Amino acid sequence: MVQAKIFKYISLEEALSLIDDHVKSVLPIEDVSLPEAYGRFLAEDITSKVDLPLRDVAHFDGYALRSIDVTSASPRNPVKLRVKAKVYPSTSKIEVVGPGEAVYITTGSLMPLNADGILPVEASIVRDEHLEVKYAVKPGEHVIKAGSDVKRGELILRRGHRLRAQDLALLALIGYGKVKAYSKPKVGILPIGDELTDEYGEVRPGKIPCGHALMISSFVLRDGGTPLYLGITPDDVDLIAEAISKAADSCDMILTISGASKGEKDYVDHAISKIDEGKLVFHGVMTKPGRQTGFAIVKGKPMVMLPGLSHSTIVGYQLIAKRAMYRLMGLTVNEKPLKAVLASDLELPSPKGFKRIIFMRVEERGECYLAWPIRGESALVSIPVRAYGYTIFNEGVENVREGSIINVYPLC
Amino acid sequence: MVQAKIFKYISLEEALSLIDDHVKSVLPIEDVSLPEAYGRFLAEDITSKVDLPLRDVAHFDGYALRSIDVTSASPRNPVKLRVKAKVYPSTSKIEVVGPGEAVYITTGSLMPLNADGILPVEASIVRDEHLEVKYAVKPGEHVIKAGSDVKRGELILRRGHRLRAQDLALLALIGYGKVKAYSKPKVGILPIGDELTDEYGEVRPGKIPCGHALMISSFVLRDGGTPLYLGITPDDVDLIAEAISKAADSCDMILTISGASKGEKDYVDHAISKIDEGKLVFHGVMTKPGRQTGFAIVKGKPMVMLPGLSHSTIVGYQLIAKRAMYRLMGLTVNEKPLKAVLASDLELPSPKGFKRIIFMRVEERGECYLAWPIRGESALVSIPVRAYGYTIFNEGVENVREGSIINVYPLC
Repeated sequence: MVQAKIFKYISLEEALSLIDDHVKSVLPIEDVSLPEAYGRFLAEDITSKVDLPLRDVAHFDGYALRSIDVTSASPRNPVKLRVKAKVYPSTSKIEVVGPGEAVYITTGSLMPLNADGILPVEASIVRDEHLEVKYAVKPGEHVIKAGSDVKRGELILRRGHRLRAQDLALLALIGYGKVKAYSKPKVGILPIGDELTDEYGEVRPGKIPCGHALMISSFVLRDGGTPLYLGITPDDVDLIAEAISKAADSCDMILTISGASKGEKDYVDHAISKIDEGKLVFHGVMTKPGRQTGFAIVKGKPMVMLPGLSHSTIVGYQLIAKRAMYRLMGLTVNEKPLKAVLASDLELPSPKGFKRIIFMRVEERGECYLAWPIRGESALVSIPVRAYGYTIFNEGVENVREGSIINVYPLC
Repeated sequence: MVQAKIFKYISLEEALSLIDDHVKSVLPIEDVSLPEAYGRFLAEDITSKVDLPLRDVAHFDGYALRSIDVTSASPRNPVKLRVKAKVYPSTSKIEVVGPGEAVYITTGSLMPLNADGILPVEASIVRDEHLEVKYAVKPGEHVIKAGSDVKRGELILRRGHRLRAQDLALLALIGYGKVKAYSKPKVGILPIGDELTDEYGEVRPGKIPCGHALMISSFVLRDGGTPLYLGITPDDVDLIAEAISKAADSCDMILTISGASKGEKDYVDHAISKIDEGKLVFHGVMTKPGRQTGFAIVKGKPMVMLPGLSHSTIVGYQLIAKRAMYRLMGLTVNEKPLKAVLASDLELPSPKGFKRIIFMRVEERGECYLAWPIRGESALVSIPVRAYGYTIFNEGVENVREGSIINVYPLC
């Protein structure tokens, strides 16, 4: 009759190390044009192809001049310079400034030959095409020297970096029209359960809208993957095996949702065993929630078995699935949590060796953040919604005092 | 001849208040289906349409029973119950448990009538369709009560909230198939300059790839808008006026890049004055960098004049343009900066009344973050690339001591 499965729980560290061992095939690298590159992960180190700026340029609008001509200038004894030309950033011809001459120049324009300083336009008086200079200008004043921003050959960004908006601005200016990026992992999302429906907008007993698939798809999108929703599979071991096997053909990675527990109809591990090239690597991780998370390799593709209860689904994704997804690009997860002050004592009675993950509400209070634990059963879907993020407490930690500094990882 | 323009600098607070005064027309509200709703801004308060769970459900796989039947159960005196049925989350029929009976149940399934507790499958021994119960089960044990997650009518999320992954999971479960969201602001991006080119991949004097347009487009995308790249406009006041006027017809908001300074060819404000329904609201904000940022209303649409030097472009977007864009949705910007410890003394000689924005490199060090200021001219495009984010120092602050706690706003 119904018999409980025996799980072999392993530590989170062991689980991550097994993932690293088993996910070796890095995704293909592709050329991505700069306008398409926001949010992509670099598959190359970026070094500058040029000096930036290419040559000395003006940092201000004003008049380019030879500082030696105006060393004696003062409001009482202004020096007159003849304005011989105008240059703009679009001017590719290089002007020459001789003794007693100046050139009108705007920000970003190439400095004329011999000119070594700029009198800003705000301080300039021009009459009859002559500039009256009332102050000395230091050599180099308001000039951006060639290569002072970035030197040719300088390392700018490293492989694995996720491209931000400001990175694109720099890449354009140092001569990149495209970059090598990892192709986006195609992540098949496979929710399992007779009770599930793709019809949103109604709830009735026995028919549960499959919101967890939307959640996991959104996480995948946020983390730089391409979620492929593969539809609901009923609680049938053969159908599950078939769905996983097909997903492995078309995706770089598979995430099943639900069916990972110990109940009679938790068929996912059984389904894996039915696939020729399916191998269960681990099933059971010492995190609470999330302990029913499993990991398999199917036809060479990593597959994470996410448990179906809301908190466990989230923890399984954040701690296990994301690791595997990043690993496909040869990267490790690197997040900056908020540092927060725990606002109340926290009791964490836990099974021996288990890490605890607690959802946290966070409020800014002057120079710090305060974090309040939100406790409740892992089935309560509203808890992560009320939370800003979560904190991981290590095994053996049973009491955390109010005032302790904790890491809160955002769930956005 | 060339004459410097006179700017009337206003404080950042005054600038924001002028934006709030002038951007009153909130964007249309649209129905967005749940699978499309990730990252969208709610245009309605969300209250639950149902109790969640709808009825009492099992929190574990196991056997639903009447706790009163097993009060005397012990390993020495197990109580035998007849297993009369199995229920799953997909079972909509409600079973009934009579005295001496139990029902096999899996997580999320509706509790049978009269049953008030669950013996987990791990603790269950079943022989000949009879369950041997060796421990008392408390009333309510492993049962999630109807409405204990969310109560019908409960306020879940407020108007203006940006939908996260976990929010979608809950929305699905409380009966939402779609939500009311603000339509995404269509933001026209209008870089200006004779020297600019859309051809990326090469840099030569007089031809500058327009990386700042990519940067600003990416920021808009990150912040929930739809960037519409409108191409480069040369330094010609009539062409600029025409481009702005056309942009105002097709976009909800316009961002010009460059042409906002005091140079001879900084035509944007002049161009606005040439448009019948164009009105310059302010030009000059007391932030350094970013002081040349301007704001106008053109044909009823907000337009921000972003300065062209990298740091100023970023500051103008983050502090001014984002405010206007959010304001189109009736929202205010609400970000959680990192709290960091300033790692070195910082001198901030500033024009009177000016706020200073300093880019910061950030490193995690145990219980805190350390932040190092990255100093350098606002033309240096590499500085924001080396930074994690930026800190705003208020007017009058001239020295900040090492060890001070500062807010670092991420630039991602």
